Amino acid sequence: MSPAFADERRARVALSFLADPGDPVLGRALRTRTAAEVLAATTSANDAGDAVLLAEGEDLTLSKAMGKWRKRVSLVPSVARLATWQQGGLRLVVPGDPEWPTQLDELGDARPLLLWVRGSADLRYSCMNSVSVVGARAATGYGQHVALQMAAALAERGLTVISGGAFGIDASAHRGALAADGLTVAVLAGGLSYGYPRGHAGLFAAVAAQGILVSECPPDQAPTRPGFLIRNRLIAALSRGTVVVEAALRSGALNTARHARELCRPVMAVPGPVTSEQSAGCHELVREYGAMCVTNAKDVVEHLNPGGSGDEAGAGPAGPRRGPAIDTDRLDPVTRAVLEQVPARGGRGPASIAIRAGVDLDTAVRTLGLLAAGGFVQRCDQGWRVRQAE
Amino acid sequence: MSPAFADERRARVALSFLADPGDPVLGRALRTRTAAEVLAATTSANDAGDAVLLAEGEDLTLSKAMGKWRKRVSLVPSVARLATWQQGGLRLVVPGDPEWPTQLDELGDARPLLLWVRGSADLRYSCMNSVSVVGARAATGYGQHVALQMAAALAERGLTVISGGAFGIDASAHRGALAADGLTVAVLAGGLSYGYPRGHAGLFAAVAAQGILVSECPPDQAPTRPGFLIRNRLIAALSRGTVVVEAALRSGALNTARHARELCRPVMAVPGPVTSEQSAGCHELVREYGAMCVTNAKDVVEHLNPGGSGDEAGAGPAGPRRGPAIDTDRLDPVTRAVLEQVPARGGRGPASIAIRAGVDLDTAVRTLGLLAAGGFVQRCDQGWRVRQAE
Repeated sequence: MSPAFADERRARVALSFLADPGDPVLGRALRTRTAAEVLAATTSANDAGDAVLLAEGEDLTLSKAMGKWRKRVSLVPSVARLATWQQGGLRLVVPGDPEWPTQLDELGDARPLLLWVRGSADLRYSCMNSVSVVGARAATGYGQHVALQMAAALAERGLTVISGGAFGIDASAHRGALAADGLTVAVLAGGLSYGYPRGHAGLFAAVAAQGILVSECPPDQAPTRPGFLIRNRLIAALSRGTVVVEAALRSGALNTARHARELCRPVMAVPGPVTSEQSAGCHELVREYGAMCVTNAKDVVEHLNPGGSGDEAGAGPAGPRRGPAIDTDRLDPVTRAVLEQVPARGGRGPASIAIRAGVDLDTAVRTLGLLAAGGFVQRCDQGWRVRQAE
Repeated sequence: MSPAFADERRARVALSFLADPGDPVLGRALRTRTAAEVLAATTSANDAGDAVLLAEGEDLTLSKAMGKWRKRVSLVPSVARLATWQQGGLRLVVPGDPEWPTQLDELGDARPLLLWVRGSADLRYSCMNSVSVVGARAATGYGQHVALQMAAALAERGLTVISGGAFGIDASAHRGALAADGLTVAVLAGGLSYGYPRGHAGLFAAVAAQGILVSECPPDQAPTRPGFLIRNRLIAALSRGTVVVEAALRSGALNTARHARELCRPVMAVPGPVTSEQSAGCHELVREYGAMCVTNAKDVVEHLNPGGSGDEAGAGPAGPRRGPAIDTDRLDPVTRAVLEQVPARGGRGPASIAIRAGVDLDTAVRTLGLLAAGGFVQRCDQGWRVRQAE
């Protein structure tokens, strides 16, 4: 293996080719070790590696897992191949990067090693005020209609629509957000270059142009059957809440809802005809799991922002500010300082914002651009203002 | 006025022609006075009547109401007219009668003065294990289909289906119960001889033949606009719970649901397409008022009998007995004694039941007949047994 992988970032890439996505044994190992250390132990001679780990009181699980990972070492790509992907428009985002969505850290040991990203928007800012809209591949015309309308209305309210890029409800959700000139994020179960399902090549190109494609899998990798379920935790963890539009009783969308519930994020379900099998999972979520019954984007926004009016995404209990609700805990201090100087009415120029926020003009302009990409602020005649609800 | 009305039963009939249904002033007056006393005070000379009441510390409200009632004295029917109605198949049921549904007493001052009843079944027993299925007159094909199927399945589980006899969901609910050879009760807003809506003459004849028609209004009276809403309290109060199948946001069915909620009876709503205005009221009930989202008869039975399996109506927390759940608090001691001797498996003859229950054979046979009409017990090869869920 190339010594270039000795650094932490490249060690994560290498490990992403060795372990399956969300491998909890690797996650646990990374609690106390760097990726480079785990990689070094994995690729070192069998006996020596085991000896080091066991000497530290590690249980046999990690030792066994390393044995499995070691068999895949030949899959680790060369630096040149990595460069090819990056030249092809993919970028690598790892924990600690500015674009890393820190809400993924709530996944604990199941946090992804890294994310491959393609698209014009900033992943972290895009997901900060987002909602997942998911559902059955075998959707009905009703479900597709509702997903499209709801995603468009959510996007118009400044929310990023996250989904899984699949046929059916997922595709309608992405298309609705795109049609409303909103941001949308497609979290794929396979690699971004593989681009499954192939029939969605056009949709994925549109998503990348206006939003973001994301995957934790090596770019060329085909999706595996368990991979779809493992991917669902990312959809739930990236968003502030999950809406299930249509789902049969054993639909994978219910798995996404379960992840959202485990993360204590709001789970919402769209009702449908009781005569439709594709709505049975939604009704079960409402009946058995306390999911909120939502009928339109206003209901969704209300449920994401309890106490808000629903007519605007930002009228949360925190104050009278108009515009999308922002979980300011997730903002870094500089961004928060800049955002606080953007007025809710009228407008303010970037130089004035920079002075008031105590940052230089370049930082202010760059931060305002990111906040705009996230749907939090918008340009106006007088400069910048908090984004108004449509 | 005929002196024949001096007795309590006839005084209630007379008052039912003077006061509007559910008049709370009359209900309050009847807390401390017999109907005959109130009637006498109403029909006596103006000044004298007022003087008597005010001397007892009554407020002016009753005095004013009596003035209004007195103007209608000419409407009170003759004894001959009453006899004509009764010969035409109507029977009069007042509080204290064996057929009086004692659950109506929970309405307090809004308890009806009396009920006019037409039909083959016993009102009290029929309603003891019942559920209301109500909804919009302007129902969709979807709503009518669901109401019909659900009512049939509820009837097959031994539940009496109560509704309002209106076009749309109500009619489908009655028809579903009839189709399943079940019991159904239509609570009309106008008088039973008037039979509104006229287009339902055939349906009402079928309900009377197999179940019961009920009204608190004088038999010839046309329904009034407020009368529909006032009638709704009876639908809610007669049944163990209310299911709204379809309702627009301002549907009268939501008024029935409100009455059920005020009576602390379970309120259930059937979801439908979020694109359908006729389901918007149902979704509002689930979202805003905590109504249970039910998709089929099994869900309804489960919600009426928390802890039960839903596959059978009787597997409540009270015990392992099979058959419909019975609120035994509402049974008189003799009926309860007879029911307790009806076996859940096998069967037992009426003579044996009579001896074990400590009642005479005639009483046992009559009580078993009433329990059978209520769907609680059924004949079998060995005599009688608790009714099995279908």
